[in-house]
Amino acid sequence: MKARVFVTLKSGVLDPQGAAIGAALGGMGFDGVNSVRQGKVFEIDMTDTDRPEAEARLDAMCKRLLANTVIEDYSIDLS
Amino acid sequence: MKARVFVTLKSGVLDPQGAAIGAALGGMGFDGVNSVRQGKVFEIDMTDTDRPEAEARLDAMCKRLLANTVIEDYSIDLS
Repeated sequence: MKARVFVTLKSGVLDPQGAAIGAALGGMGFDGVNSVRQGKVFEIDMTDTDRPEAEARLDAMCKRLLANTVIEDYSIDLS
Repeated sequence: MKARVFVTLKSGVLDPQGAAIGAALGGMGFDGVNSVRQGKVFEIDMTDTDRPEAEARLDAMCKRLLANTVIEDYSIDLS
């Protein structure tokens, strides 16, 4: 079973990296970019076959390792 | 118009960061994780209202700045 986990900064948290990318895009002539925020994506290949169990395990992985839930949000996309 | 751009390493390219995360998950007791690969996600808020035009602009952004197409693949998700 393959999963994608997205980890992004919470909306109130400053993202200087994203701001730098937005400024760089503007400098390269790409107008009309209001904001850019950068996050991480993890592509995880698991042996689990049970969907709810896989979701629960991924949720635990996010809370314990993949995301810093003080400043980051995460979402799980199971395929 | 909001877009998500995913940038991931091509399948043949070594991903030591992903491998380290996979090993850490194993060490924390999460069995059955075959592989982990880490990538980047960019959340871009644009003023464009025309979908094909926005896609073309995002594609150009990826080729020129967001992705290193020698070692990375990208995909665009427009909402």
